[in-house]
Amino acid sequence: MRPLLTVGEGGPPYYLREGALEALPELVAELASGAIFVITDGNVGPLWGDGVAAALETCCLQLPAGEEHKRWTSVERSLLWLLSNGVERGDLLVAVGGGVVTDLVGFTASVALRGLDWVAVPTTVMGMVDAAVGGKTGFDLDEGKNLVGTFWQPRAVVADPLVLATLDDRERRAGLVEAVKGAIIAPAGTLGRRLDDHLQALAAGDLSHAGEVVGAAVRVKAEIVAADEREMGPRASLNLGHTLGHALEASTGYRRFLHGEAVAIGLLGALLLARDRGMLDADDLRPWFAALTALGPYPAFDDLDFSDLAPFLTRDKKRRDGRVRWVLPRRGGVVLGNEIDLDAVAAVYAGLARASRSQDWAALV
Amino acid sequence: MRPLLTVGEGGPPYYLREGALEALPELVAELASGAIFVITDGNVGPLWGDGVAAALETCCLQLPAGEEHKRWTSVERSLLWLLSNGVERGDLLVAVGGGVVTDLVGFTASVALRGLDWVAVPTTVMGMVDAAVGGKTGFDLDEGKNLVGTFWQPRAVVADPLVLATLDDRERRAGLVEAVKGAIIAPAGTLGRRLDDHLQALAAGDLSHAGEVVGAAVRVKAEIVAADEREMGPRASLNLGHTLGHALEASTGYRRFLHGEAVAIGLLGALLLARDRGMLDADDLRPWFAALTALGPYPAFDDLDFSDLAPFLTRDKKRRDGRVRWVLPRRGGVVLGNEIDLDAVAAVYAGLARASRSQDWAALV
Repeated sequence: MRPLLTVGEGGPPYYLREGALEALPELVAELASGAIFVITDGNVGPLWGDGVAAALETCCLQLPAGEEHKRWTSVERSLLWLLSNGVERGDLLVAVGGGVVTDLVGFTASVALRGLDWVAVPTTVMGMVDAAVGGKTGFDLDEGKNLVGTFWQPRAVVADPLVLATLDDRERRAGLVEAVKGAIIAPAGTLGRRLDDHLQALAAGDLSHAGEVVGAAVRVKAEIVAADEREMGPRASLNLGHTLGHALEASTGYRRFLHGEAVAIGLLGALLLARDRGMLDADDLRPWFAALTALGPYPAFDDLDFSDLAPFLTRDKKRRDGRVRWVLPRRGGVVLGNEIDLDAVAAVYAGLARASRSQDWAALV
Repeated sequence: MRPLLTVGEGGPPYYLREGALEALPELVAELASGAIFVITDGNVGPLWGDGVAAALETCCLQLPAGEEHKRWTSVERSLLWLLSNGVERGDLLVAVGGGVVTDLVGFTASVALRGLDWVAVPTTVMGMVDAAVGGKTGFDLDEGKNLVGTFWQPRAVVADPLVLATLDDRERRAGLVEAVKGAIIAPAGTLGRRLDDHLQALAAGDLSHAGEVVGAAVRVKAEIVAADEREMGPRASLNLGHTLGHALEASTGYRRFLHGEAVAIGLLGALLLARDRGMLDADDLRPWFAALTALGPYPAFDDLDFSDLAPFLTRDKKRRDGRVRWVLPRRGGVVLGNEIDLDAVAAVYAGLARASRSQDWAALV
């Protein structure tokens, strides 16, 4: 099987193909010098994780599913399971699941016995286009998302678009938000047309072009990551929409929003802030608002006061020197490090919160 | 201030000098681009940690002292403290304490916001000659010591032999065990004569040559680490004495032995196993037994059955392929990967356990 691409110099090969899952045992056999351990979650296990473990002739741990379990307790549970099964240096972990599972297993691999190899098998759109590209691992604290983590590349990423058929609609649509983010970040045209062609079909459950959409989004992210593996510069552009998105998730205990849904609201907010600053005009905003509206509906949050969110905005790990910096879009790219007054954010937030009740996002433009 | 040495290519400078602590603010100012956070423990804080924080004009966290607190709870406490104080990427952590503190703070630095810089200020012999050299960080699980960890080099190590004056005798003697280990590993003569000259004086509390003993031991470890930063080969020689040592600590809940004391017993065991295999003869053993006896007395453990230890021996993270491999000494060096039958270990252990009652270790040779 030939990889779609290699993520950065010396980075892992990314395999993307219908039927890639069937080729997994052969691939893993090439990488593994010791035992193999599969970790998945309670949702993905019955669908794919157990089958992968059976094909690899090994055991499988099911972590509890959901962002609220992206915690140290899940890492510890994985560590204890690995140890009770005699894990050794040189063994290989295989993560089968969405971004939560791959982030947790990647972190576990980075700290177990001071570092094990791992392979990411993302089973969600979000996992394929975002979590599995770039080597970021981690988990959440009460104080915020992904506050604990490492950079620890998998040995390979294996994505099979066929598994997306088992995603429920809400999860598939939420995952596609990261593809829209990629389209906003990417130089004009590189991702846009493909998205126009296929995004709506995919959102509606037609998977015939899933591989192309995923592949295009993976390419955008891989290119940015390759230029900046440790997130000191341009990689920060990938945080577009995440400042407000993380605050929405954290202030609702990671229960109300899927990650992609919160990022969608964050993207809408970033687009509005950019317009208010003259970086984009209303005509620039409309196609993105249309694409993000098509991936809704999103959970309403007009019950959520801005004062509940504000502490999470100022605690974001992307701020430096005590000021909150936002990534904001402009035509054909993004601008890093915009320092935004909290009052301006509050005004935009008020509009978004109202619109979340009617779902009439276009009215904000 | 000129460093004693640099640990490996591109590794951190190691500063060792009487009065080095006074030069710390200047050094830290050169390294820090953001805020500075000092983390110490309840023992070291009143002696040195608080003073360092005051000199650096910053705040200081005191973790609970002792190996039994080398746990995730201490890491989490550090993370929450850092976050509540507004930690950001680009900030610098300063660890002031023994090996437990530097291992914990190094780990915290490696995972907080996916990686912060840190400086190690070891205040024990053990911390100076072992923990602070080589970039290993980590903490313990019930299942064993240092099962969770990362490789994350500090930006600098700053060791001031004058602080050793505040160590209690037991802790200073235990720390010197790592220096004896270095002498056993090192090619004959490189460390031995200096040790002969100064070890006993230092064990008795005469610090006039502490810098020389520490410096010699640091050089041995730095040389081995530089050749093998990720512990794939020769660095394993530093595990001499640690297989049995870790098992003794783990099976007594990290409460009975200081780390160095357990390693001393482990070294005695490794020397006996090597003799039984013809790798050393009795004359080779005697000087090491004399040196280690001088660093005692060690806690008695004749109440501890070998069957209590055995599970921790076979769970050691240094084993590969399910077999327990021991590092064993030979004349002027060590041999890695000796596969030892558990019965042979049990026999040696029985002798050591008996001797721990009388402290007559020489009788075993």
